[in-house]
Amino acid sequence: MATKSREIRLKSRPVGMPEASNFEVATVDVADPGPGEVLVRNQWMSVDPYMRGRMYDRPSYVPPFQIGQALQGGAVGTVVQSNDPKFAVGDLVESMNGWREAFVASGSALNKLPGGVPPQAYLGVLGMPGMTAYTSFHRIGEPKAGDTVFVSGAAGAVGSAVCQIAKLRGCTVIASAGSDEKLAWLKSVGVDAGVNYKKGNLLENVRAAAPKGIDIYFDNVGGEHLEVALDVARPFARFIECGMISIYNDKEPAPGPRNMSYIVGKRIKMQGFIVSDFADMREQFYTEMGGWVRDGKIKAEETVENGVENAPKAFLNLFSGGNTGKMLVKLG
Amino acid sequence: MATKSREIRLKSRPVGMPEASNFEVATVDVADPGPGEVLVRNQWMSVDPYMRGRMYDRPSYVPPFQIGQALQGGAVGTVVQSNDPKFAVGDLVESMNGWREAFVASGSALNKLPGGVPPQAYLGVLGMPGMTAYTSFHRIGEPKAGDTVFVSGAAGAVGSAVCQIAKLRGCTVIASAGSDEKLAWLKSVGVDAGVNYKKGNLLENVRAAAPKGIDIYFDNVGGEHLEVALDVARPFARFIECGMISIYNDKEPAPGPRNMSYIVGKRIKMQGFIVSDFADMREQFYTEMGGWVRDGKIKAEETVENGVENAPKAFLNLFSGGNTGKMLVKLG
Repeated sequence: MATKSREIRLKSRPVGMPEASNFEVATVDVADPGPGEVLVRNQWMSVDPYMRGRMYDRPSYVPPFQIGQALQGGAVGTVVQSNDPKFAVGDLVESMNGWREAFVASGSALNKLPGGVPPQAYLGVLGMPGMTAYTSFHRIGEPKAGDTVFVSGAAGAVGSAVCQIAKLRGCTVIASAGSDEKLAWLKSVGVDAGVNYKKGNLLENVRAAAPKGIDIYFDNVGGEHLEVALDVARPFARFIECGMISIYNDKEPAPGPRNMSYIVGKRIKMQGFIVSDFADMREQFYTEMGGWVRDGKIKAEETVENGVENAPKAFLNLFSGGNTGKMLVKLG
Repeated sequence: MATKSREIRLKSRPVGMPEASNFEVATVDVADPGPGEVLVRNQWMSVDPYMRGRMYDRPSYVPPFQIGQALQGGAVGTVVQSNDPKFAVGDLVESMNGWREAFVASGSALNKLPGGVPPQAYLGVLGMPGMTAYTSFHRIGEPKAGDTVFVSGAAGAVGSAVCQIAKLRGCTVIASAGSDEKLAWLKSVGVDAGVNYKKGNLLENVRAAAPKGIDIYFDNVGGEHLEVALDVARPFARFIECGMISIYNDKEPAPGPRNMSYIVGKRIKMQGFIVSDFADMREQFYTEMGGWVRDGKIKAEETVENGVENAPKAFLNLFSGGNTGKMLVKLG
């Protein structure tokens, strides 16, 4: 018996800032699972800033989304019907089949999840954003106790994980976010100083918060924040280039920092990465980060929209600062 | 008996491009050496692009030059009189007391040089520029045989050493320089393809020379070259940030590359350095590079001005592309 599933399709490629009209809802019949296949009903799906890049029609590390087809992204769901002996009805599984209510996939495309934490943690602090934060902060940032760490986009899923990991490593943490409420939450989880980038002069405010300069910059936003970070960087600073959300929607490429020569004079290391580059750290991540989450040493905040029809809204809100912590869509 | 020495002083700080009027010649009496001191007559002195940075009055990794005082820089000379038992008359020594004909210094500020190569090699391919090229190319560039290496400022002292070291490591080398004559010389020492950055569209020309992209970018110039390198970089490319001569004389800071987001998407590592950061590689450098130079596997070209009074001219010519290979001033 076919299962009805609503899904979100890319209707047109955004030019500049994405809009609701770039998306459409469709209802499809999901066929019964064939041999080796599993039927899954999604409970939660993730929207992430990197998905904006897949809406451009250009070569990248992941192929572009196709117009008229369902979008993709991280999701956790429950097995409803299984023709793969590795999965039983009721199992919690992770997939890249987000943006839809139900789907059939080969068991090999699913990842069975342990319990013990809320299922949506596997889309946030114990999922791709958490692993992004944990792996790059250690591998590129090379943190030492006493380092000063500046984090942009600090209230987001990745940024808020970085802030808390840095505190656990004995660092001083300066967080930039777009509202005083977000900064208040970040201080409640241990951040030393907050900068509201929408108020006053960013460079002056960061200088005041980090009078001795910074040793590590965790970059989620690019643009002006990157220029400021170059200005306040100490010699041998490490720049973890995770994302540049401030320029993802630019129609014309914006000029880069005016102070690039600091990279030479201050001997800065600036390095980009994709979380899969650090797949060798997966076990270490699950062990250490899992322990921190279970022990309450790392707190995960969430912003939740309900229903697949609100997934585009959740995605659009990423670019207007609508989320504190992980932005999620509850489907189940 | 005092020794007369002519020296070059900074008369005024350059604003934008340095001019002859920023310098002045003075004649001083050099006193006889005291206990532990040595009197040296310089044979050769070096002018290098990094000296422009010391003409600004700002904190940096080396203190700024002072107005009315003699400039400083690498020099090789001969011991004329010695009160330090470690130095004998006739010894060849290296110092940071360039821009003058003779000087007295503590023996501890001098470095005795072996023979076997022309003395001025210790200001070029076996000196600071050669060590800059050798250490950073290996330590930051992490070259593998088969890599494609793009070198800007390729005809200069550092760039031409990088090109030849890269060839010895089995890399394909694309060189950018400002004249067809320079490129012809670079091809004569093994470079695979040359781009004259003064002719046509730089991006198109680099793309044509490196159709599969680049794995290592050795940056001496910054500016447009850096943007082009980001465009043609392959995933996991390493950018060795040695210098940005194209922007050293900017009166207003110029915007950076418009394609900074490639650092994330292509997982680029961009790292600045100062040669002293890699002091631990000194012995390896002398051994391997010395062998290459003696065996004729690395060729050093020179552009020479004569007389300390022409040192400012030599320095100014660095910024108009007046040198092929190491720019030197012959004093002895």
